[in-house]
Amino acid sequence: MNPEPVLLQQDGRGVATLTLNDPQRFNALGQDMLAALQQRLDALARDEQLRVVVLAGSGKAFCAGHNLKEMSAHPDLSWYRQLFAQCSRVMQSIQNLPVPVIARVHGMATAAGCQLVAQCDLAVASTEASFATSGIHYGLFCATPSVPLVRNVPFKHAMEMLLTGDFIDARTALEQGLLNRVVAADALDAEVEKLVQSIVGKPRTAIRMGKAMLYRQREMGLEAAYQLAGQTMAANMMDADAQEGALAFAQKRTPAWKS
Amino acid sequence: MNPEPVLLQQDGRGVATLTLNDPQRFNALGQDMLAALQQRLDALARDEQLRVVVLAGSGKAFCAGHNLKEMSAHPDLSWYRQLFAQCSRVMQSIQNLPVPVIARVHGMATAAGCQLVAQCDLAVASTEASFATSGIHYGLFCATPSVPLVRNVPFKHAMEMLLTGDFIDARTALEQGLLNRVVAADALDAEVEKLVQSIVGKPRTAIRMGKAMLYRQREMGLEAAYQLAGQTMAANMMDADAQEGALAFAQKRTPAWKS
Amino acid sequence: MNPEPVLLQQDGRGVATLTLNDPQRFNALGQDMLAALQQRLDALARDEQLRVVVLAGSGKAFCAGHNLKEMSAHPDLSWYRQLFAQCSRVMQSIQNLPVPVIARVHGMATAAGCQLVAQCDLAVASTEASFATSGIHYGLFCATPSVPLVRNVPFKHAMEMLLTGDFIDARTALEQGLLNRVVAADALDAEVEKLVQSIVGKPRTAIRMGKAMLYRQREMGLEAAYQLAGQTMAANMMDADAQEGALAFAQKRTPAWKS
Repeated sequence: MNPEPVLLQQDGRGVATLTLNDPQRFNALGQDMLAALQQRLDALARDEQLRVVVLAGSGKAFCAGHNLKEMSAHPDLSWYRQLFAQCSRVMQSIQNLPVPVIARVHGMATAAGCQLVAQCDLAVASTEASFATSGIHYGLFCATPSVPLVRNVPFKHAMEMLLTGDFIDARTALEQGLLNRVVAADALDAEVEKLVQSIVGKPRTAIRMGKAMLYRQREMGLEAAYQLAGQTMAANMMDADAQEGALAFAQKRTPAWKS
Repeated sequence: MNPEPVLLQQDGRGVATLTLNDPQRFNALGQDMLAALQQRLDALARDEQLRVVVLAGSGKAFCAGHNLKEMSAHPDLSWYRQLFAQCSRVMQSIQNLPVPVIARVHGMATAAGCQLVAQCDLAVASTEASFATSGIHYGLFCATPSVPLVRNVPFKHAMEMLLTGDFIDARTALEQGLLNRVVAADALDAEVEKLVQSIVGKPRTAIRMGKAMLYRQREMGLEAAYQLAGQTMAANMMDADAQEGALAFAQKRTPAWKS
Repeated sequence: MNPEPVLLQQDGRGVATLTLNDPQRFNALGQDMLAALQQRLDALARDEQLRVVVLAGSGKAFCAGHNLKEMSAHPDLSWYRQLFAQCSRVMQSIQNLPVPVIARVHGMATAAGCQLVAQCDLAVASTEASFATSGIHYGLFCATPSVPLVRNVPFKHAMEMLLTGDFIDARTALEQGLLNRVVAADALDAEVEKLVQSIVGKPRTAIRMGKAMLYRQREMGLEAAYQLAGQTMAANMMDADAQEGALAFAQKRTPAWKS
C-alpha cells in the first residue's frame, strides 16, 4: 500500500481536493484506503475554512470498489460486517460534511467506486468514464452501492445495473441522473472548476444548513418536510449573511459575506 | 400593492384561472400576496363546480419568489417562521385541492416561484420561461422550495440548482421532470388548454379520490400503498360515475357523468 | 375463458416464460386470470432451479388491465375490495419472487396492464407497444396502477398519465423510466434474450438476497438502508459463490457457481 493512500490538496479559497492514490490497485477501497479516507473526511469536517471538496482518483481508474483479494483472505462474517460498516461510515461522512462534495470522475468507477459517485452531492465526469455495479460478476450483489444508486437513478435502470453488472458510459450515466455534467477528458478539470466557482463564493452557513436539511427532508413526508424546511429557512434568515444578502439585493450591490 | 393581488377568472366548464397580479414586483410572494392566494385557494376548495385550476402570472415574470425587501425589514425569527409557515400552507393547499392544478409558466420562476411550479400537479411552460432556486445568491438556501423540487427532479440536478442558484431553461426543466410540456410563447395558452381539455371532462369524484390517494400513497411503503390504493379504487367503483363508465364501456357508448 | 389462461414455458437454463393467454379479451385481468397468474407465481417461487421469469402476452395486446365487464356485473363494495386485494397480491408476488421478472411488452399495456410493466423488475418493449393508465376514461382513477408507476416514473409524468388516461408510446415510456429498452417488433425476442443472458448466469443466492434487499432498503432512511445493505452484503460474502467469485477474480479465471 502507498504510504499516503489519500492525498489532500487545499487552496486559499477553501477548496480541498482528495485524491484516491493507489493506482496499482485502481484505488480499491481496502481497509487502509477506507481508514485514510475516513481520517481525511473527519479532519475536513472540522475545517472552518472549508467550502468545497473535490473527490478524485489517481491513475487509470477513478475507483474499482472493494478490494476483492483482501476480502477473499478473510472468510469471516464479523470481518465482512466490520468492513461494510466501515465503508458505509465513509459514505455517510460524505453526506454529513457541511460543504458540497463533487466527484471528479475521469475513468472507471465500479461497485463501491460507483457508489462514491452516487453518494457525492454532485458529480462531473469525462466521456472516458464508465460506471458499473459489477459485484454480481463475482457472486456479490452490490448491496451498499445500491443505497445511493437507487436514490439517484430511475429504479429500473438501477435494477438493470445491479442485476447485470454491465457498464454504462458517461453519457448514459448523465441521462440517468448519476452525473451533473459530462465533458471531454481534457476539459474535465475546467468543468469541475466551473462548478466549484459557482459554489465557492456562497456563504458557508447557508450551504451548511441547506445541505443538512435537504438530506433530512427528503426522507420525510411532505408536511414534516415543510416544517423542517420552514424552520431551517427562518433560522437561515437570522444569520448575518442572509441579512446582508437581502440588504445588498435591495441596494443593488454585491453582498459581502461573513461566513 | 395592487388592490387585487390574485385575479380569479372562471368559465362555465369549471376551469378557474388564478393570476398572480403584482407585475411591478414580479409577482413576489409577499405577505399580502400569500394571504390573497390562500384566500383564493380556500374559496376554490369549497367550489363544487370546480374541475381544473390554472395558475399563471401577469407581467414579465411568472413569480420571483419571496419579497426580499419586505423580509429585510423584519429581522425577527418569529416573523420569518410565520412567513415560511404561511407560504408552506399555500403550497400544501395546492396539493390538497380536490382538482388538478396546472402551472402556466411564461417567464422567470425563481425561489418560491420555482417552488410553485414544482408543487403544482402539472406544469406547462413557454420556451422563454426559466427556473432557479436563487436564494443562495442572497445568503438564503431555498429550503422550502427544495421540498417539492426534490420530489420532482433527479437528486443531483436539484442539488446543483440549490447550491449554485443558477438558472435552467425550459427545455432542461422539461428533461429534468419539472415540467410536463414546453412550447413556443405564442402556443402556450393553446397547450395549457389542450391539457385542460383532456382533464376537464373527467368525473370529479374519481379525480378527487385519485389525487388525494396518489400523494398519500407515495409517502408509504409498498404494502401500505397497495392497501390504500385498493380501498380507494373499490370505493371509487361504488360511485355512480364508475358504474356508468363500466356500463358505457360494455355498451360501447360515451359515458354520461354525474359528477 | 381459455382453459389455460396463463401459459408456462420453461427451458433448461431456469428461464420461465409466463404468457397471459386470453387474446380475445386482450388478456384482461379478470378473477380467473388473476387466480391463474397467482398460482403460476406461487409455483415458480418454490422452484429451486428458477433463474429468470419473462412475462408476456398472447395476441394483439400485452394486457388491457381489469375486466370492466366482469366488474360492472358486481356492484358490491366487498367484491371490489376482494378483487383489488387479489390483484395487489399478484403484483407483490412479482416483487417477492426470488428471481428477476422481465416484462416483454409487444402491444398495448393499459391500466393494470401498465401496472404489470411498472411492477416487473425490468421491462423491454417493442416500438409498437403503448402505455396508458386509462381507468379515468371510465370514471375509475387507476389507483393501484399508480403505486408502481409513481415509483418508476417522474412524478409529473405519472400524474399526467393518471389524470388524462392518454397513451404514451414506447419511446416516451423509455425516456420516462418505465422501460429498460425499446426495439423494433421483430427484434423484441432477441432483445429480451440478451437481457436474460446477462442475468441467467449469475448465482441465484446473490440475486435472491440482492433483489429482496433492494426493495426493502429503498423504503428506508439512509442510515437504516446502509445497515440492512451492509448486513446483506456480509451474509452474501459468506456464501460459497461469493468466495468462489473473489477467488476466481484473484486467479483471473471464470467462476464456477454452486447456486
